[in-house]
Amino acid sequence: MTTVAYLGPSGTFTEAAMLKLVDLAGLTAVEPLAVSSPSAAFAAVRAGDAEYACVAIENSVDGAVTTTHDAFIEGEPVQVYRETSIEVAFAIMLRPGEDLAGAKRIATHPVAYNQVRGWLADNAPHLEFVPASSNAAAAEMVAAGEADVAAAPERAASLFGLDIVAREVADVRGATTRFVLVGRAGRPTPRTGNDCTSVIFTLPNEPGSLVGALQEFAHRGVSMSRIESRPTRKVFGTYRFYVDLSGHIDDAQVAEALRALWLRCEEITFVGSWPAQGQAEPAAHEPSRLRQADEWVAKVRSGQ
Amino acid sequence: MTTVAYLGPSGTFTEAAMLKLVDLAGLTAVEPLAVSSPSAAFAAVRAGDAEYACVAIENSVDGAVTTTHDAFIEGEPVQVYRETSIEVAFAIMLRPGEDLAGAKRIATHPVAYNQVRGWLADNAPHLEFVPASSNAAAAEMVAAGEADVAAAPERAASLFGLDIVAREVADVRGATTRFVLVGRAGRPTPRTGNDCTSVIFTLPNEPGSLVGALQEFAHRGVSMSRIESRPTRKVFGTYRFYVDLSGHIDDAQVAEALRALWLRCEEITFVGSWPAQGQAEPAAHEPSRLRQADEWVAKVRSGQ
Repeated sequence: MTTVAYLGPSGTFTEAAMLKLVDLAGLTAVEPLAVSSPSAAFAAVRAGDAEYACVAIENSVDGAVTTTHDAFIEGEPVQVYRETSIEVAFAIMLRPGEDLAGAKRIATHPVAYNQVRGWLADNAPHLEFVPASSNAAAAEMVAAGEADVAAAPERAASLFGLDIVAREVADVRGATTRFVLVGRAGRPTPRTGNDCTSVIFTLPNEPGSLVGALQEFAHRGVSMSRIESRPTRKVFGTYRFYVDLSGHIDDAQVAEALRALWLRCEEITFVGSWPAQGQAEPAAHEPSRLRQADEWVAKVRSGQ
Repeated sequence: MTTVAYLGPSGTFTEAAMLKLVDLAGLTAVEPLAVSSPSAAFAAVRAGDAEYACVAIENSVDGAVTTTHDAFIEGEPVQVYRETSIEVAFAIMLRPGEDLAGAKRIATHPVAYNQVRGWLADNAPHLEFVPASSNAAAAEMVAAGEADVAAAPERAASLFGLDIVAREVADVRGATTRFVLVGRAGRPTPRTGNDCTSVIFTLPNEPGSLVGALQEFAHRGVSMSRIESRPTRKVFGTYRFYVDLSGHIDDAQVAEALRALWLRCEEITFVGSWPAQGQAEPAAHEPSRLRQADEWVAKVRSGQ
C-alpha cells in the first residue's frame, strides 16, 4: 500500500487532485490519509507516515499558497514528482429544507471565500463568513449545525447530506488550482522532453544578486515560468526565492544553469524535475513605443 | 482636517504606524478613520472619503500582505508617499479575573496568529483559534465575551479593559511589519537622496521577459530591494510583478530604467517615490566553490 496524505476530509478539491496525481504517477493500491493542512501533509511525509502528499501550490486568483511554500523548508528536503491543475468552481449548499434567506453563517476555506465573495455580495450579502480548514470541512460544519451554508465541491453535498442551491459558482471563470505530488527526496521523475524543474534559494543581500542569478537561466535559454518570494524570517528585507524552470535536471542547459546558480546562492534546495502540464500561450509583441515611454516618465514625475 | 483611513479599531499596530506616518509626512489636524480591511482603506481614498490610507504591505515572518498588493490594482491608481516599519510583539490578554487554563477560544488576526502559535503551543495548547479582522478587534471580541483570550498590542488591553498575562510574545524575535501611506496619484514625495521607488507591471508571457525587464535595472546600477508576484487572474501562469527599487524617479538612472521597463510592459503603474527607511546589511561573499557545485548537480540528478 502507498499512503498519500491530502487536505481532507473526503470531498475536497485536493482529494480530486490527489486521485489524478496518483494516476499520473502510476501508483496503485493507494491508501488516502486525510490531514488538516499542507503543513501536516508535509509532516506526514517527513515522519514516514505517508509516502506522498498532495498539496495545492498556487491558484489563478489567490496566487501562491504560502503555507505550502513555507512547508517546503520546515524540515528535511522533500521533492515534487508530479503536478496537475484543476478548474475550481463551487456549489452552494445548505441543510435540506433550508434556504439562503434564512441562513446566517457561511463556512468555507478562506481561499474559496475569496473566489465566491462577489456571488455572495449579489445573492446573500447578509451572510457572516466563518473560516473552515477545507471546503469539505465546511460542508461537514453545515451538516453539524455549526454553520448554515457551505461553498464546497459538489461532491461534498452528497457526502454530507446537503442540498445544492447554486452550482458552478466562481467570481472568476476558469479559476484554476495547481497541485503537486510531494515525496521524500529521491531520484527525479524521468525526463519526458516537456518538463518542469523547481528550486528554492537564498542569495547574498547585495544589489543585483537576484538579476545575476536569473541571468544564469536566461543566458542558457532556460525559461523561468514562475518566481515567488517569501521572507527568510531572519533579516527583514531578505527573501527566499521559489523558481520554476522549463526543462529537466537531465537537460544539459538546465544542469549548467543550476550549477551556476548554486555558486551564487547562500542556500539552495532542489525541489524536483517532473512532467510539465500545459503552458499558457505567449502574448503578441508590441511595436516600439519610445515616445510614449518618455511621456509616461514625464507624467509620473510631474504627478499629473 | 486630513482624513487618514487605517485598519481599526483603535489599538491596532496599523494605528501606531499611522501616527508615525502622518508625523513623517508633516500632516497636522489628522482625523483617523477606522476601517475593516486594507481594501476598504484604499476604497476610502479612491472615493474621496479619506486623503490617505495607512496599510501594512509586508511582514518579516508572513511575507507580502496580499490583500494590500491586490488593492493597488482594484481601481483608480493610488500612490505611496511614505513608509515606516514597526517591530511587532503581542500581549496576551483576558477579561479581569480569568486565566489561560479556563479559557477556550483565542481571537487574533490570522497574520498575528502565525506569529504567536509557537508560544500558544507551549503555553495554552488547548485554545481554539477564532480569526478576527484585526488584533484590536480581537480584544474587543474578548471584552464582548465572543472569545476568551486575545493576542493584540498592549495598548488594546487598556482600551478594552482587559488584563495582560504575557507581554512581548513573538515566535520570531524582532518580527517587523512595514507600512505605507497611500494617497491618490499626484506629485511624488521630493527626492532626499535615499529613496525608494515602486512599480507594478505585467509582461508579455514569453521566455526571458522577466529577466529582460529586471536587467533594465541592473544595467543602470539601480538595485532592486523587493519583488513580489501576484496572479493576473486572466491567464493561469501569468503574473503581475511588484518591484521596489533604490532611488527616486527624479534620479536619472531610475527614470531611464523605468522608461526602458515601460517599453517592455503590457501594463505598468507607477506606485511612487518616497524616502527610504533603513536597509538590511549586505552579507559577505563566499569564495569560489566550483567543485561543490558540480557535486551538487550530480547528487540531485542521481537522487542521493
